[in-house]
Amino acid sequence: MAVGDIAMPQMHVVKGVKIGVTEAHVRYPNRRDLVIFEFVEGTNVAGVFTQNAFCAAPVHVSKKNLQTGDIRYLIINTGNANAGTGKTGMENALKMCNAIAEASHVQPNQVLPFSTGVIGEQLPIERIVDAVPKALLGKEDAWGDAAKGIMTTDTTPKGASETFELDGIPYVMTGISKGAGMIRPNMATMLSFVVTDAPIHQNLVNKLLKESADQSFNRITIDGDTSTNDSCIFAATGQAGGKTIEHEQDPRYLVLKEVLFRVMKRLAQLIVRDGEGATKFITVKVEGGANTDECCNVAYSIAQSPLVKTALFASDPNWGRILCAIGYANVENLNVENVQVWLDEVQICQDGGLASTYTEEAGVEAMSKTEITIRVDLGRGEATDTVYTCDLSYDYVKINADYRS
Amino acid sequence: MAVGDIAMPQMHVVKGVKIGVTEAHVRYPNRRDLVIFEFVEGTNVAGVFTQNAFCAAPVHVSKKNLQTGDIRYLIINTGNANAGTGKTGMENALKMCNAIAEASHVQPNQVLPFSTGVIGEQLPIERIVDAVPKALLGKEDAWGDAAKGIMTTDTTPKGASETFELDGIPYVMTGISKGAGMIRPNMATMLSFVVTDAPIHQNLVNKLLKESADQSFNRITIDGDTSTNDSCIFAATGQAGGKTIEHEQDPRYLVLKEVLFRVMKRLAQLIVRDGEGATKFITVKVEGGANTDECCNVAYSIAQSPLVKTALFASDPNWGRILCAIGYANVENLNVENVQVWLDEVQICQDGGLASTYTEEAGVEAMSKTEITIRVDLGRGEATDTVYTCDLSYDYVKINADYRS
Repeated sequence: MAVGDIAMPQMHVVKGVKIGVTEAHVRYPNRRDLVIFEFVEGTNVAGVFTQNAFCAAPVHVSKKNLQTGDIRYLIINTGNANAGTGKTGMENALKMCNAIAEASHVQPNQVLPFSTGVIGEQLPIERIVDAVPKALLGKEDAWGDAAKGIMTTDTTPKGASETFELDGIPYVMTGISKGAGMIRPNMATMLSFVVTDAPIHQNLVNKLLKESADQSFNRITIDGDTSTNDSCIFAATGQAGGKTIEHEQDPRYLVLKEVLFRVMKRLAQLIVRDGEGATKFITVKVEGGANTDECCNVAYSIAQSPLVKTALFASDPNWGRILCAIGYANVENLNVENVQVWLDEVQICQDGGLASTYTEEAGVEAMSKTEITIRVDLGRGEATDTVYTCDLSYDYVKINADYRS
Repeated sequence: MAVGDIAMPQMHVVKGVKIGVTEAHVRYPNRRDLVIFEFVEGTNVAGVFTQNAFCAAPVHVSKKNLQTGDIRYLIINTGNANAGTGKTGMENALKMCNAIAEASHVQPNQVLPFSTGVIGEQLPIERIVDAVPKALLGKEDAWGDAAKGIMTTDTTPKGASETFELDGIPYVMTGISKGAGMIRPNMATMLSFVVTDAPIHQNLVNKLLKESADQSFNRITIDGDTSTNDSCIFAATGQAGGKTIEHEQDPRYLVLKEVLFRVMKRLAQLIVRDGEGATKFITVKVEGGANTDECCNVAYSIAQSPLVKTALFASDPNWGRILCAIGYANVENLNVENVQVWLDEVQICQDGGLASTYTEEAGVEAMSKTEITIRVDLGRGEATDTVYTCDLSYDYVKINADYRS
C-alpha cells in the first residue's frame, strides 16, 4: 500500500504531445506494456540517466541520440529492462527506434528508447516491433493511460500536472513517473517523463532538467540501490505560444523553474510513497551545515540506515540510531555538542545528548504517524538539504526475497 | 541462529592476563555483565575505535588513556552503551576507571573502559562500582566466561585461540569478540579483545593491530551502520619469554602477524555468522582491480546492497542485482565488458553479460548453500580485496523493529 496522498490529479493536456499505449505482450498477456510519446517538430528534449556503469542498452542509445537532438519520439516498454543483454541488447534497442522511424518517416536517432523490468533477458523484439504501429495512433488526452502503461509492480500510477501563466499566456506542465516495482528478477527502476507546452530554448531545457532532477529524483532513496535503467526526460513543445525563453534572466524562467521543480518533486515523492514495502513517508531535512554537500550526506546517511528505517517501521523513537547515522556521515570535525534533532516538533536530541524536554511518550506519538519529518541542525553554518525516503518493513524483504515462492 | 561453524575452540591461557567476570545488574538481574582484564606490568596495549563522530564516552576515555600508555586494566560492561550521555556519561566512564584505580593502586588512566548496550541512558554507575572488587578477583583460565560476559543478544559466545612457536619458544594468541546484538534500544556494537604472551614492542603492537583490524574487522558488514562504540584491543604481555620483537625485519614478526590476522579474521567472521537475522555467510571476493580501494568499494557495494542481500536470503540467483551493485560502486571508467562474476564455481556473468555456460539450475543450486562466495573479476589489474557479510532476512527486520511489541 502506498503511503498518504497518492491520487492522480487532473492530467492537463500538453499541446504538441500525442501518447499511444498498447499491448505488446512483452512478458504478460492483457497488459498495456508499450507507450509511445510523439512530440511535435521543434520540441526541445533533455534527459538525465543513471550513473550505473552497467547501464542498460536503451540508456546508451538514448544518451547518444540526445546528442544529435531533434527528438520526436519516446518509446517505453515494461516487462523487460534490456539490461545486461550485451550486443543483442544494443541491437534490440536500436530496432525499437527503427520500428518508429520506418512507420513515421523520422530518423532512428530521433527516437529515445526506454525499457524497464527483467534484467538479463533479451527483449521479445518482434512483438514490440509488431505493436509499434498501434501505439503510434496516439492521442493528446492519454496521460493517465501512459502513467498506467509504464507501471511494473508499482501499486499505483503516478502523475503530476499544473497549469501556469507566463506573461498572460496559459501553459501546462504534466508528467508521469514509475518507481520501485519488481518483476522477477528486477531492481527498482525509476522512469519519469515531464512535458510542457511552454517555449523554452534547448540549453535551458537541459539546465532546468538537471537542476530540478537534482533536487527531486536525486534526493530520494528507497534502498540505496542505483538502478541500471533510471531515466528522466523533460521536453518543451512550445505549442502554447509566446516568445521562446532563451536566458535565465528572463523573468518567466524562475516561474517555470518553480513549476517544474514542484512537478518533479511530486513525482519523486510519489515513487517513495509507493516504495517497496513502504508504510511511512519520511522527510529528512538537514539544516545548519557548512555546505549543501554535507547536509546531503547526513540526510542520506539517516535515510539509508537500515536501523533507522526499521525503527521508523516499528514507530520506535530510537534516537540513538539517528545520532549514530549522523555520526558516520563523514562530516569533517563535526562538533556533536552543537547537534539538535527533532521528530516533527518533538526535540529528541539537544546539544548532542538527550533533549531535556523529551519524553518517551512524545517520541512514540511522533513516530506513530505515517508522515514524519526528521529534522537535524548541525549547528555549523547556513546550508540545508532535504531527502525523502520510506521505512524498511517485512514487506520489503518479502517483495524482494519471496517472489519465487 | 548463527550460520555454520561457530564453536568455541579450546581457549588457551595467555600468561600475564587475569580475567574476572561478575554480575553488576547493569540492566538485567542474574546476568554476568561486567568483565575485567588485568594485564601484568609491562604489557603493551593498542586499540582501534569507531570512526563515528558520536562515539561513546568510554571510547573517548580509552583513546585518551592509550596515549599515556602503561595500560593495566580493561573494564567492560554490557547492558548500557554509555553513548549519547553527555557530561554525566564522561564522568561515569571515568568513575569506572577510578573504581579500579582505588582498588588496585594503579592510576585511573591505566584503565580502559568499554560499554555496550542501550544508547542514551545513564549507566547505573553505583552498581558497576560496587561490583568492581568482585570482578578484580580474576583468574587466568576465564576466557570462555569473558566471551559470555561481553555478549548482549549475541546468540553465541565468540572466541579464537592459537598456539604458535617463535624461535622454538611456545606462545599463545587468544581473543574474544561480540557483535550484532541488541538491547532496547541499541545498535550493532562490535567489541574485540585479543592478547598474546609474546614479547612485542609497543610500536609493533600498534602496527599489528591496525593492519590486522583493517583486514578483518574493517572488512565485515551486516547492515552498513557504523556503531558508536566499536572497539578492538590487542595486547602483548611478553610473559612467555623470548627477546622482544622490535622491528618488522625480525623474521618472527611475519609469523606473529599471520597468527594475529587468522585470529582476528575468525573473530570478525564469527560476528557476521551471528549477524542479526543471518541465515547465510557470504564471502565477497573482488579480483582484477586497478587498486585495493576499488576492489574494497565494489565488495562493499555488493555486500551492503539490500537487493543482493534479500536475493541471497531467497536463494535467488538474481545476478542482475550483483551487476547493478558493481555498476554503482563508482569505479572510474569501468569497462563492463571485462567483468566476470561467479557464485562459488558457477560463472553467472561473462564479459558483462549472462555467461554462456550459465543455467538457472546451477545458479539456484549455488545460491541454496548456507556459505556462498561471490567472486568478481574486474579485469583491469592485479589488486584484490575480500569482504564478509550475511543475508537480509525477515528476522533482521523483526529483531530491529519488533522488540517493543
